Amino acid sequence: MVGKNGLVRPDEFRKNAHALVDWIADYLERSADLPIVPAVAPGELKARLPASAPEAPESFDELMADLDRIVVPGLTGWQNPGWFAYFPGNSSPPSLLAEMATAAFGQQGMMWATSPIATELEMVVLDWLVDLLGLPQGWKMSGPGGGAIQVSASDSSHLALVVSRHRAQATNPIDQLVAYTSAQSHSSIEKGARVAGFKHFRAIDVDDEFAMRPEALEAAIAADRESGLIPAFVCSTVGTTGTTATDPIEPIAAIARREGMWHHVDAAFVGSAMICPEFRVHQQGLELVDSYVFNPHKWLLTNFDCSVFYVADRQPLHETLSIVPPYLRSAAATSSEVVDYRDWQVPLGRRFRALKLWWVLRYYGAEGLRSVIRRHVALGHDLAARIEAEPDLELVAPARFSLVCFRHRAGNEATDRIVEAINSSGASYVTPSLIDERRFIRVSIGQTYTEAEHIDRLWKSIAGAL
Amino acid sequence: MVGKNGLVRPDEFRKNAHALVDWIADYLERSADLPIVPAVAPGELKARLPASAPEAPESFDELMADLDRIVVPGLTGWQNPGWFAYFPGNSSPPSLLAEMATAAFGQQGMMWATSPIATELEMVVLDWLVDLLGLPQGWKMSGPGGGAIQVSASDSSHLALVVSRHRAQATNPIDQLVAYTSAQSHSSIEKGARVAGFKHFRAIDVDDEFAMRPEALEAAIAADRESGLIPAFVCSTVGTTGTTATDPIEPIAAIARREGMWHHVDAAFVGSAMICPEFRVHQQGLELVDSYVFNPHKWLLTNFDCSVFYVADRQPLHETLSIVPPYLRSAAATSSEVVDYRDWQVPLGRRFRALKLWWVLRYYGAEGLRSVIRRHVALGHDLAARIEAEPDLELVAPARFSLVCFRHRAGNEATDRIVEAINSSGASYVTPSLIDERRFIRVSIGQTYTEAEHIDRLWKSIAGAL
Repeated sequence: MVGKNGLVRPDEFRKNAHALVDWIADYLERSADLPIVPAVAPGELKARLPASAPEAPESFDELMADLDRIVVPGLTGWQNPGWFAYFPGNSSPPSLLAEMATAAFGQQGMMWATSPIATELEMVVLDWLVDLLGLPQGWKMSGPGGGAIQVSASDSSHLALVVSRHRAQATNPIDQLVAYTSAQSHSSIEKGARVAGFKHFRAIDVDDEFAMRPEALEAAIAADRESGLIPAFVCSTVGTTGTTATDPIEPIAAIARREGMWHHVDAAFVGSAMICPEFRVHQQGLELVDSYVFNPHKWLLTNFDCSVFYVADRQPLHETLSIVPPYLRSAAATSSEVVDYRDWQVPLGRRFRALKLWWVLRYYGAEGLRSVIRRHVALGHDLAARIEAEPDLELVAPARFSLVCFRHRAGNEATDRIVEAINSSGASYVTPSLIDERRFIRVSIGQTYTEAEHIDRLWKSIAGAL
Repeated sequence: MVGKNGLVRPDEFRKNAHALVDWIADYLERSADLPIVPAVAPGELKARLPASAPEAPESFDELMADLDRIVVPGLTGWQNPGWFAYFPGNSSPPSLLAEMATAAFGQQGMMWATSPIATELEMVVLDWLVDLLGLPQGWKMSGPGGGAIQVSASDSSHLALVVSRHRAQATNPIDQLVAYTSAQSHSSIEKGARVAGFKHFRAIDVDDEFAMRPEALEAAIAADRESGLIPAFVCSTVGTTGTTATDPIEPIAAIARREGMWHHVDAAFVGSAMICPEFRVHQQGLELVDSYVFNPHKWLLTNFDCSVFYVADRQPLHETLSIVPPYLRSAAATSSEVVDYRDWQVPLGRRFRALKLWWVLRYYGAEGLRSVIRRHVALGHDLAARIEAEPDLELVAPARFSLVCFRHRAGNEATDRIVEAINSSGASYVTPSLIDERRFIRVSIGQTYTEAEHIDRLWKSIAGAL
């Protein structure tokens, strides 16, 4: 209980924390049996809450009771092994525990001086990832580049857009700058371009496998140059949201260099797969690009938020972001041994997010993480084979990783009936999508605990709707 | 341990979580006795870590052992009651526990449909805060405005700058837009303006108490209009970082309205104090502004990240941020009962951050939180009185809240000696600052557990250096 002057006795924490741990462990054990989509209408949960905050303190038992009464009935099954919607937003035991330690330490890692461990552990763990994922060695902190954990891929891509715009605006009016990406890239690129102030945004045509066509990019650039506009940014995607298509990095990089554009690569989901060398053929050419993002919070068992952003050269990043007022000066900032991460991101404050990534990498080991990725990819290939063997169904894109995209050959309505069958089962959940008015089903396999039995269950729903 | 296919047995989590809780509870009990500034040189912690990630899984015991061996020696005392540096970056037992539950639920609250509870609880709790802090009623979700939790005040202010720029760029070249703030505002305003693409930024003169001079703002606007530039944004600060000065909102609002500028208010630290009605005189005029930010993660006992951003009218925000691709469409989005928070922020993904705020507000109750704020302010006033009674020392600004700014009358070197005495004591920690080449000491009182004894200890260090 809260005592005089708002202070809490230390043993209160220990008692409450053990009670919460037991509640959470019970919840995790039963959560696979909870509905994936909660049975609540918009506004229903609000109605269970009082209209104003309490004047007097409540006990921790009351807070815990409302977890069952209000919170659990409003949760979606992101951590359910039957979750095949969007991309995964993963968690794992070591990540979850690290989040608690992070909260206890209450570090603010804006500068080395405000948290040496948050800074140095992030530097080390992001260097580890360069080797683990086969990324260019120059992206290590000992090279000209380096990495920083951001909140989301949207933030990382927005940051790349801002740096490209800042570099280009030195010699050009902002209103004339153009950003390019494929018509299949994530909405965060268009949104990031708008937020960064780009008035001109081009969605470039894709080929039959939904990868950007370099010749279409060249044609768009030529047309824009003709109109007096200035190409400033291009984004390649390794693993699009729609179908995990992979843009050809090398030819796009050649165009970007020739045109003086910033070349950013969005590998938000698929980047984690590169821990398995057999997938690295899809990231060939990364040594030619300017910036890169992938999200361990999608497929590397690390809780949101954990988006890893690398730059090949940190100078333009710092020229855009570095501002040092008197209360933020520190002696360590001039050391070449460490960095001040405030100069690597838009916000000033930052959580100690390296801890969870460190714990995940160690608790699973590289071999454990590879086995998780390979399990998901094998499940995807198995599902794709079943779909190809079923005359009524067709894949709409190659299942290169663990995302399987398919539709009913009879068209959109028959496809919708399959979605309805899957999502009303309560055991599996998918998100429908569309390309050129053709609706299809995305089965995004990647939840930490998804195994063969969950694919079997999903397949039963699909087969039952044919 | 990690088993076949990278899976972890459920009872592993329970066992490890109880072990971690005991470690954390022990850590919290002893943490007040740990050095506030860790005794490590830049690069020393990195050197304790291996150069590459492990191939094989490690046990949770090994991870825990490294908390003592590597992590604790690199932590700064943000949660130490002798922490008087920067502004506080608080934590509290209910907030810490909520972070663990948040991690366990693994929700991704980008839309109502992806997490009804993360969405509706945030709507409710931010409505609660409107009443608790005496903010304009129109900022509730039932009004034209509304609120959303962002990562940091930098993000919130950057967002306000982006919306103002987006609105203005419809009829003006971006390169001609101007952003204004006081010379004492936080560096995040200048950085946010640069990130948002403003090429023109003006730091407006302040008065003797470091508040923006409205007539200086008017003169700057007139000069810019004369040069053909377009005033688009002005930020007022309620509680500056340097001295908790408060800008006069009402006259600045009148200028902003006349000039068609977006008026943003940064109350990052001091906003939490408004839970006590006696401080609301310093936020008079908020009903005239366009957006507002304050950080519960500074002074409302809630862990970073928790920055609360309100707008008076959500329409321009959505016009700037809303982009809806097929895989993000949902039926609920058209309901007027709920919102899709992706349209309230730059990133798409978002953590379930309302839970910790909900738990803090309930566990302490409004009266508990008021008593914490009033305790800190009383401690600040007590320290200010001691300084005023000491002939060698002088306050450099009124101590209106809990920040006390003072210097040695003999000048910068004597002031530096006091800083050195405080910070080398190991028991208290302050950050020095300067205004117009005059160095001074900021004593920022606001850590959750700071009490009279910690101010006495600090005073001993100060008095010993005179």
